[in-house]
Amino acid sequence: MILKYCYGNPLETEAVIEKIRLTESVPAEDGVLPESGLDCLKMKEGGCGFTCSLSENDIVYGLGQQIRGINKRGWVYESWCSDDPDHTENKRSLYGVHNFLIIDGKECFGIFVDTPQRVRFDIGYTDRDILDVSMAANDYYLYLIKGDDPENIVKEFRRITGKSYIPPKWAFGYGQSRWSYRDEDEVREVVRRHRENNIPLDSVYLDIDYMERYKDFTVNEETFPDFAGFAEEMREQGIHLVPIIDAGVKIEEGYDIYEEGTEKGYFCRKEDGTYFTAGVWPGRVHFPDMLNDEAREWFGSKYKFLLDQGIEGFWNDMNEPAIFYSEDHLNEVFEQLEEYKDKNLDVNTFFEFQDLVRSIANNPEDYRSFYHQYKGEKIRHDKVHNLFGYYMTRAAGEAFERLMPEKRILMFSRSSYIGMHRYGGIWMGDNHSWWSHLLLNIHMLPSLNMCGFLYTGADLGGFGSDATEDLLMRWLELGIFTPLMRNHSASGTRRQEAYQFKKLESFAGIIGLRYGLLPYLYSEYMKAAIKDEMLFRPLSFVYRDDSQAKLVEDQLLVGESIMIAPVYEQNAQGRCVYLPEDMKMYRMRSLEDMDTEIMEKGYHYIQAKLDEVLMFIRPDHLVPVSSGGRCVEEVDENRLRVLGYIKDGAEYELYQDNGYEKDYNIQRHTSVIVLTPGGQLEETSCWKQMPDGMIVKK
Amino acid sequence: MILKYCYGNPLETEAVIEKIRLTESVPAEDGVLPESGLDCLKMKEGGCGFTCSLSENDIVYGLGQQIRGINKRGWVYESWCSDDPDHTENKRSLYGVHNFLIIDGKECFGIFVDTPQRVRFDIGYTDRDILDVSMAANDYYLYLIKGDDPENIVKEFRRITGKSYIPPKWAFGYGQSRWSYRDEDEVREVVRRHRENNIPLDSVYLDIDYMERYKDFTVNEETFPDFAGFAEEMREQGIHLVPIIDAGVKIEEGYDIYEEGTEKGYFCRKEDGTYFTAGVWPGRVHFPDMLNDEAREWFGSKYKFLLDQGIEGFWNDMNEPAIFYSEDHLNEVFEQLEEYKDKNLDVNTFFEFQDLVRSIANNPEDYRSFYHQYKGEKIRHDKVHNLFGYYMTRAAGEAFERLMPEKRILMFSRSSYIGMHRYGGIWMGDNHSWWSHLLLNIHMLPSLNMCGFLYTGADLGGFGSDATEDLLMRWLELGIFTPLMRNHSASGTRRQEAYQFKKLESFAGIIGLRYGLLPYLYSEYMKAAIKDEMLFRPLSFVYRDDSQAKLVEDQLLVGESIMIAPVYEQNAQGRCVYLPEDMKMYRMRSLEDMDTEIMEKGYHYIQAKLDEVLMFIRPDHLVPVSSGGRCVEEVDENRLRVLGYIKDGAEYELYQDNGYEKDYNIQRHTSVIVLTPGGQLEETSCWKQMPDGMIVKK
Repeated sequence: MILKYCYGNPLETEAVIEKIRLTESVPAEDGVLPESGLDCLKMKEGGCGFTCSLSENDIVYGLGQQIRGINKRGWVYESWCSDDPDHTENKRSLYGVHNFLIIDGKECFGIFVDTPQRVRFDIGYTDRDILDVSMAANDYYLYLIKGDDPENIVKEFRRITGKSYIPPKWAFGYGQSRWSYRDEDEVREVVRRHRENNIPLDSVYLDIDYMERYKDFTVNEETFPDFAGFAEEMREQGIHLVPIIDAGVKIEEGYDIYEEGTEKGYFCRKEDGTYFTAGVWPGRVHFPDMLNDEAREWFGSKYKFLLDQGIEGFWNDMNEPAIFYSEDHLNEVFEQLEEYKDKNLDVNTFFEFQDLVRSIANNPEDYRSFYHQYKGEKIRHDKVHNLFGYYMTRAAGEAFERLMPEKRILMFSRSSYIGMHRYGGIWMGDNHSWWSHLLLNIHMLPSLNMCGFLYTGADLGGFGSDATEDLLMRWLELGIFTPLMRNHSASGTRRQEAYQFKKLESFAGIIGLRYGLLPYLYSEYMKAAIKDEMLFRPLSFVYRDDSQAKLVEDQLLVGESIMIAPVYEQNAQGRCVYLPEDMKMYRMRSLEDMDTEIMEKGYHYIQAKLDEVLMFIRPDHLVPVSSGGRCVEEVDENRLRVLGYIKDGAEYELYQDNGYEKDYNIQRHTSVIVLTPGGQLEETSCWKQMPDGMIVKK
Repeated sequence: MILKYCYGNPLETEAVIEKIRLTESVPAEDGVLPESGLDCLKMKEGGCGFTCSLSENDIVYGLGQQIRGINKRGWVYESWCSDDPDHTENKRSLYGVHNFLIIDGKECFGIFVDTPQRVRFDIGYTDRDILDVSMAANDYYLYLIKGDDPENIVKEFRRITGKSYIPPKWAFGYGQSRWSYRDEDEVREVVRRHRENNIPLDSVYLDIDYMERYKDFTVNEETFPDFAGFAEEMREQGIHLVPIIDAGVKIEEGYDIYEEGTEKGYFCRKEDGTYFTAGVWPGRVHFPDMLNDEAREWFGSKYKFLLDQGIEGFWNDMNEPAIFYSEDHLNEVFEQLEEYKDKNLDVNTFFEFQDLVRSIANNPEDYRSFYHQYKGEKIRHDKVHNLFGYYMTRAAGEAFERLMPEKRILMFSRSSYIGMHRYGGIWMGDNHSWWSHLLLNIHMLPSLNMCGFLYTGADLGGFGSDATEDLLMRWLELGIFTPLMRNHSASGTRRQEAYQFKKLESFAGIIGLRYGLLPYLYSEYMKAAIKDEMLFRPLSFVYRDDSQAKLVEDQLLVGESIMIAPVYEQNAQGRCVYLPEDMKMYRMRSLEDMDTEIMEKGYHYIQAKLDEVLMFIRPDHLVPVSSGGRCVEEVDENRLRVLGYIKDGAEYELYQDNGYEKDYNIQRHTSVIVLTPGGQLEETSCWKQMPDGMIVKK
């Protein structure tokens, strides 16, 4: 059941695409919401937010891309798309905003606060027993979703917010990225060294350096003299190039996009009508008004420049939007800095001075100093801030629909808002080479899935700071399960392509597992996308009556058959794992090298050496596995091995398609694999068993 | 066996106080050290550091105050005393420098690199299988300590570096601190609210605000008009005031210490002979030359100002030394900033600009621009950098010896070097209210103990960032076992005195446990100090043949009887615990409220609600427990309860003394408590059993 309440004059974010009747929004005297039947949830006076009392063991799920655990209790979070690379425990905002929560207590219900302004979620921070939600302004829609359990609520929520984005199948391959790949030869070297070492690879990402002085939709002709030819050369090796696109357009006479945007009035303006100037990678830029339909269509159409050169995937960056500085504020700062010259700076004045300099980037005042044309109205940026990244990616998604209606184009974004999941995925932002961020990666997966973001993953090995061989390996052991599987790092950090380290065979083995698991992972992804389900689920979503399962935050279910328990501590040689039921453990070093053991329900310490991946299969569940390949194209999905834990017989619905077109009609592409209690394939119209144990498509 | 090698012309740090014969330092052709008998350890050419090959399962312990795990493998650490409050995984240096390592492999040996310059420990970072140690300059002593096992090696190392500092007994009580307690009334309020809520308390710390404009050895007469009287008033309530002392002396005409120091030439000078000017809390300061014997004696004598007012404890801060800015460099920066004015700052120039501002604090160039008089020679600061905090605390320690030869004075420092452990303890620096720092606290305890620092603890609840009730409570559950047990937080963060939260009874119960455990903890501390042993040991030090115990990094042995397994994850309601042998578990909520269970060797998931402390007693070990008190003075140590896990009978050697004098003659103060297999006290000359189960001193 979904109830929709309206307070003030909220802007339409187009997060929800289903028409839902408005419920009477005036709450009862004690604040209880009309028709809700929930005593714990109360509106504050005047509709300015609401509170919910929490019992000792209630769990609060959600918020998508955020710090801390799967259970969000015990912190205060703020919805404000932020470019902040240090995701430490004290932060309140990351790149994306996903105002969806599930309160799982005596009553179980979901809440979606739909407003593009700042929202504050105090989830047992001020008072452990109170959830307190408040907004910068009292203009918002509140959706209340009641259901039997969290999975149900997620499904309902996903139904009203629309189908999740589906990338091309090659985007499930391993990708290598680094901010600093300067030219064709460096990219060739990356590919060559993966191929030489039998480390599969499907894509190389091009960070800002491929552009001509960081200008969107340009290519540096010195370093990439024949971009289309180079893209073709890469494609022949099974490699897709994935260039980055930034939110800001460089101010430069003669640069067509700048000139066209200026002429047509497509950039965001200040109060006085002149264009707002921010500083980002290229120096001074204007921001295209992504919220203006016409400007958005115009910006989207620019992707054609790269699509025409054979590019099939993009990542949208800096679209919170990140502001290194604004021209106006920077000038003010320089003036104020004068005052500190020749002063005896003590604790107060010195910190003031430091704060002044720190205030230059992502300054709240700057976000109040430019405007959008949204649905015909002039609206100050801070009132729609959390939509900017969403609408930039929508620009691209809508353009792809026009330009290439049949073909799937890879698209993921740094900033996001619920609704954007229809147009692209996200990566988890600029993390660090920290073990704690490997754990954070685990925590974010189900939280993002709840909000519709299925195509996601973290920068494996970590973006900022220096990676170590063991960190990268452990992270890849999680990464082989995440749809976006990309190794990415920042300029100036230690090089962290797998081939930079010693254990080349182990890396090849672990990354190879991804290609073996591809038939299962792709099938599970597609079914989740089509049925509005989650790919990664907390144990508590599935084992509802298991009070122990509710507490597990470092294991996840991946699709219907698999539970993972990644090792995320340095120098560990195993870990404690909770099995909510008997399962079959696979300890895997490569597709060819794994051992198995049936393990009983309960806690176990399980050994997992540095190059060993733990995977658990649930009873009477199957995992079809290929023989791998150097890239997705090479994976033979018609010849499979079936892993599984058979007690009474099992069946698995395998979704398959060609992976490149948008026609994903589930009826046409689904086959069922049935195994008898003895573990033999029951022959169906589709599959038959071969003497070597493989099953092949008839 | 200890071997001492000498390379170049090392400075004497006085870390080692025992005379040790120099071994021939020219290594064999393959680099093997003379007399060492160790093939794995090899000098690099010319003595510029050494390498050690590591096998897959070798563990490297040590480095004292550092980030990451108990096993230091997998990172690169740099010895450089640093004021950096963000102890994230990518950092390489913290406040203290402790160049002592134990390699626990096929061979087990310790290494101490004795030099006050920068040292780099690449412990399997570049290559997982190589430990690589290199120095800024090849002037160092290398001590090689061979022994049967790590405990043995620690004992040997501690023997040559001298006895650990012993604080007064009241310093084992709970302390409340916060940067921002402004005046007498605020301190009174803190004390009152602890007393009102039955939360024991022994001390209130005074951060920089008690001084007159941050001038060392002054008291703000407006906010503390009668400091001696106020200290007396507090003492009557069982409270000790512990003021902070900073490294820098404010430049101010008329300020006696500044004038005296200038006149006598006791401050550090620049190359040209003028005094070096840095900016810290008070603005411009000079640094006393702590390495100069005369200046050190002079600075130490200044503590008398506060001792005379009844103060019995101090903490030395900012003594890396932290430099907010140097006068010279700041002027340069201001000039260079001009160049960025009106420029179109792109990625390169903008980051340059940011780096320029960031370069102001703790700039390496500044540390090369002033000099010390050390043992009669003029030495540039960077060459002795890591001694500064050590020698500041030594100034105090030596002064206390002169001024109050009988009395123990509490002293702990932020910066340190091995050797300083003879003069004071350390706190673990300016951590954050992060759960990961609770775990880091666990990791640092044994590492610091190895290096002689027994009196230590972290800022409970976290210094920077905002604490939550659950974090503080879980942290206190560890803190009740650490000798320094202090809740400390930064100005501007959420108030985190225990009484700020809801679960007052739980806080009273948990902190009360400390006072119950005091007889045991104090006894174990004193025995460890007297016998050069560790108070906190990793499981691997004790259960040498247990390969599982070697991997446990989140449990510790505390003294001879107790194992702790703190909960350090938010929203957890228990944790996995590894028992290396059968133990008796105490699940404690307060001294009056605990339940017990005998648990078998192996892994267990053990429930521990938010307000429950897990403590495990080893078989045939005892823990004498008092009935608590509001402060240490109130604890009746002559009437005890004995907790224990008796199989075949147990005895415990209880160290007791009056806790205030320096005469800790173990013979005089030790009594033995013996329990029969049936758990009854065997009557000795000292103790008899009472009908109520308590034992009392005859």
